[in-house]
Amino acid sequence: MTNDTPRMNTAPLNALPRGFRFAATNCGLRKAPNLDLGLIIGDEEVTAAGVFTQNLVQAAPVVLCRRHLHKAASRMRAVIVNSRNANCATGEAGVAAAEATAHAVAREIGCDAEQVFVCSTGVIGIPLRTERILNVIPALIKAADRTAEGFGGFTRAIMTTDTRPKWAASRCNLSGRTIRLLGCAKGAGMIHPNMATMLAYIVTDAAIGSPLLQRALNLAVRGTFNSITVDGDTSTNDTLLALASGAAANRTITRPDAEYRRFLTALENVCRSLALQIVADGEGATRVIEIEVRGAASDDAARQVASTIAGSSLVKTMFAGADPNWGRILAAAGRSGIKINPRRTNIYLAGVLTCRGGVEHRFSERNAHSRMLRDFVPVRVELGLGRGRACVWTCDFTADYVHINASYRT
Amino acid sequence: MTNDTPRMNTAPLNALPRGFRFAATNCGLRKAPNLDLGLIIGDEEVTAAGVFTQNLVQAAPVVLCRRHLHKAASRMRAVIVNSRNANCATGEAGVAAAEATAHAVAREIGCDAEQVFVCSTGVIGIPLRTERILNVIPALIKAADRTAEGFGGFTRAIMTTDTRPKWAASRCNLSGRTIRLLGCAKGAGMIHPNMATMLAYIVTDAAIGSPLLQRALNLAVRGTFNSITVDGDTSTNDTLLALASGAAANRTITRPDAEYRRFLTALENVCRSLALQIVADGEGATRVIEIEVRGAASDDAARQVASTIAGSSLVKTMFAGADPNWGRILAAAGRSGIKINPRRTNIYLAGVLTCRGGVEHRFSERNAHSRMLRDFVPVRVELGLGRGRACVWTCDFTADYVHINASYRT
Repeated sequence: MTNDTPRMNTAPLNALPRGFRFAATNCGLRKAPNLDLGLIIGDEEVTAAGVFTQNLVQAAPVVLCRRHLHKAASRMRAVIVNSRNANCATGEAGVAAAEATAHAVAREIGCDAEQVFVCSTGVIGIPLRTERILNVIPALIKAADRTAEGFGGFTRAIMTTDTRPKWAASRCNLSGRTIRLLGCAKGAGMIHPNMATMLAYIVTDAAIGSPLLQRALNLAVRGTFNSITVDGDTSTNDTLLALASGAAANRTITRPDAEYRRFLTALENVCRSLALQIVADGEGATRVIEIEVRGAASDDAARQVASTIAGSSLVKTMFAGADPNWGRILAAAGRSGIKINPRRTNIYLAGVLTCRGGVEHRFSERNAHSRMLRDFVPVRVELGLGRGRACVWTCDFTADYVHINASYRT
Repeated sequence: MTNDTPRMNTAPLNALPRGFRFAATNCGLRKAPNLDLGLIIGDEEVTAAGVFTQNLVQAAPVVLCRRHLHKAASRMRAVIVNSRNANCATGEAGVAAAEATAHAVAREIGCDAEQVFVCSTGVIGIPLRTERILNVIPALIKAADRTAEGFGGFTRAIMTTDTRPKWAASRCNLSGRTIRLLGCAKGAGMIHPNMATMLAYIVTDAAIGSPLLQRALNLAVRGTFNSITVDGDTSTNDTLLALASGAAANRTITRPDAEYRRFLTALENVCRSLALQIVADGEGATRVIEIEVRGAASDDAARQVASTIAGSSLVKTMFAGADPNWGRILAAAGRSGIKINPRRTNIYLAGVLTCRGGVEHRFSERNAHSRMLRDFVPVRVELGLGRGRACVWTCDFTADYVHINASYRT
């Protein structure tokens, strides 16, 4: 199912996990009719897990989500998300705004406020017009349904500088039951691996205990959401939530057994697809660059080298021009803080060996250039020092990134 | 004298330290008549000090400079520099090219090869056409003179993407003698503090022992060359050399006394001016941004917060648009790895208090915007945690940076 993603505007009906309803509306934070408020409701209490930004500046809704997850991980009911305003650096008023939103949703569906997650994304430091959100909550909850349109609306309501909604689906079989996983994400700028680095939501009808769901989520993010970068800036609002309704009626996963591992694989597939969609839609980006580092002394060392290359402005601008300037990749590896030996280093650009043993390997510039013009460009760096390996995804750095960010608020 | 810099095309004759001659030529690495080869010769042996890139990928000439400095710090004779080709990632052929250049200069002026520094800057990974350099060395040495034009030619011969030559002069009085210091630098991209981050040369007629000259240089770079960033990429060729001829005939500085401190101050003035000129001429840059962090737990902590802010693409693009989006500065501070407390954090943008205690302080957007349009924009971040402070300089990040770097080689 994951492979359907690029070809379809929204998830098909048979991808929707049972036990959830979705809704979206315009509440006046953005200009109508643009959607700016989205909702996910569990029919019953659902099991939840979450990972959040490691930035020390954290938005009020992030603080609220952490607290509610801690109190009610196995009995959550709803997620409400607004775009346009991050409700970050907004002080006590921001905390009150997030809490009032949770209370309003809880009152309407008849649960405790701590069973509601609240998320925000958008500009930092501007007071949130909470009354606009509160006004529409009753109608929003009433409109929630289990249709592809409902889910599609939710994926669009959470967008900011994203140019398209991002979703991914996966399935697995657990104790004879077909389990559905469906995720969506927003994020195009302020993207740098340090937990979730964006907003993302994954719903599933699997029955799974909350410690195991959290464990699976922590594992799944490492090679997916935490392995992407757009601009090196870690957001203040990063939130990834997973909700499991249990409506598939499989035998509840409570141990890290074979069924857990099958679920984990399906979860990783959704996370990887969403992470790559975020990079592909990176602000101003025209292509996805995969930086694979092999032969490092350890996986961690490989990851650090790959991250340094992926974060280099000179490397990223070079991909905007499809210029096979491998020296910049070598130079970035050299400043990564990891001990490398240039004489053992090989670099493949879009499958073309350009650098062998730290010096140029004769190659066709025209061939490398035309391969670098593709949507997906793999780069492989072999360090020749050990068995450590890692993969990090980034996008090219174009003048449009600057145009988008030079006056984001105006 | 330092203050003359912005108003003059090259240093006036009376700024030239005694005991040195300068020359520049086109040797065919760049299209004629563009200068691509520069030379500094000491009339006699001179004392030298140097700092070099910390990148593990180091160009052949950097390795040679380190070795020659180690062998002959108190009896160097010449520096030869080519632009257009970095002679980096060029293997044994690159080492041979740097050595052949040193030998040719030494033969012509009658000294040992180890008394000659060789520097290169330009594209990485392309074989250096050494024969073009060797061919012109006799004429280059013959042309060397003690004129402002000779020095001016040298400052232009070392340029790559620089839009203008960069030089600075300073004076001090030591044991009744007037000491002259004159420096020049190149660098616009691949600029990030980790030693010298560019090519720079400072000549002086002071008499000073080589350990003291090295000590002064190490101290001077910390708050100057090592406190600037353009794009976060540390070069493979960074080299800063200081040469002291002793021709001013002051009492030789051999201890860290009051005279040494006066010399250090003059040296720091030259380094600071050159460092700021590099930032001002950063690729695509339209303005210099000073990030001052106060109230950190330590100076090192302040430096790390300032560096993170100065390196943020979102902060740098915001300055391209003169958008007073202080939330990005707060978010960058929050991900710096240093423990900050947003509630104690104040942010001044171009002198305007925009954030107080982690939340917006009401300010005039129009006023802040128009102040942010100036050539030099100070930012002050107060953390309210201690007495640590640091200052880092960066430039705005414009679409022109991308245009320059998307196809640097073509």
